[in-house]
Amino acid sequence: MSQRPRCSVFIAISLDGCIARDDGSLDWLSVVEREGEDYGYRAFVDGVDALVMGRKTYDTALGFDEWPFAGKRCIVLTHARPTSPRADEEFASGAPAALLEQLGRQGVSRVYVDGGAVIRQFLAAGLVDDLTLSVIPVILGDGIRLFGAGIRLFDADPRGRAPAAALRLTSARTFESGLVQLRYDVAGTLD
Amino acid sequence: MSQRPRCSVFIAISLDGCIARDDGSLDWLSVVEREGEDYGYRAFVDGVDALVMGRKTYDTALGFDEWPFAGKRCIVLTHARPTSPRADEEFASGAPAALLEQLGRQGVSRVYVDGGAVIRQFLAAGLVDDLTLSVIPVILGDGIRLFGAGIRLFDADPRGRAPAAALRLTSARTFESGLVQLRYDVAGTLD
Repeated sequence: MSQRPRCSVFIAISLDGCIARDDGSLDWLSVVEREGEDYGYRAFVDGVDALVMGRKTYDTALGFDEWPFAGKRCIVLTHARPTSPRADEEFASGAPAALLEQLGRQGVSRVYVDGGAVIRQFLAAGLVDDLTLSVIPVILGDGIRLFGAGIRLFDADPRGRAPAAALRLTSARTFESGLVQLRYDVAGTLD
Repeated sequence: MSQRPRCSVFIAISLDGCIARDDGSLDWLSVVEREGEDYGYRAFVDGVDALVMGRKTYDTALGFDEWPFAGKRCIVLTHARPTSPRADEEFASGAPAALLEQLGRQGVSRVYVDGGAVIRQFLAAGLVDDLTLSVIPVILGDGIRLFGAGIRLFDADPRGRAPAAALRLTSARTFESGLVQLRYDVAGTLD
């Protein structure tokens, strides 16, 4: 029997929890841009077998001159299949658990889950195993938040109140730019 | 001429930016409770001359068996003055800048700004000088967020879009409990 792939999140957030400005722009990430420093991103991507991303993340990646995930299996969660894929992206819709089961059967052992909506969907289904958050030394005030109000974590909870996720800090690294990179394993529910 | 007091924030937040559950409860803080470890709180309070807090924080403190800020000057920002103060609390309403000017004239040099609404009000007015955030290894999902949507930072910005606050990381400490304490100076606006 195949194992469910490990699901990992790797994302930059402002101190106030935003992953982008309201208009989607990422200009504020420039405060931590340093020549030759990718804060472990390439090594992280190299360590996964596949990416599962939302439609917005996909459209953003399509806008880049070069397809950023070359050589890596990419699954886009969308209900509207684009007519002209850029590389050999795959398109899927449906529940995360079913998708992961299928990927597991195909030998995928670690998945990079990307995009705010998809991350929240996987968190709600209790399917995120670890999170790497790079905290950027900026307060945006307004923006698209990774964790918005009303996220139902572990939504199978029978008591009405969604239980909190208990995390285990596995590392915290500080960089000269002021970026602090926090890594957590999701250890289960708090209550 | 007197100097405006330095304004400091010292607060615990969940990884998803909550300072309390929706019903105000703080039970989740227990995951980092350790005998004899206060994560620098007492030293921080000892280092300020006065506290400025919101009405909710005040009411919570009133509920404690012992008044937690004994010997420290406390100013409660409220429009409704309670009839029976617990200690020698003072009550104020009006703009933060005017209050700080008054406190400065009275020789106050450092203020502890507490309570979500008051912190946001001071941030919006560009009056927070440093923030100490103790990040608790928990994702609450639902809760009262320190930085909600639509906070207008530095609201005097003439261009319509509120500029982001640029922060300078001054320290990052990791504790055995998984709590990560981040300290930042507010360095100005990003743009």
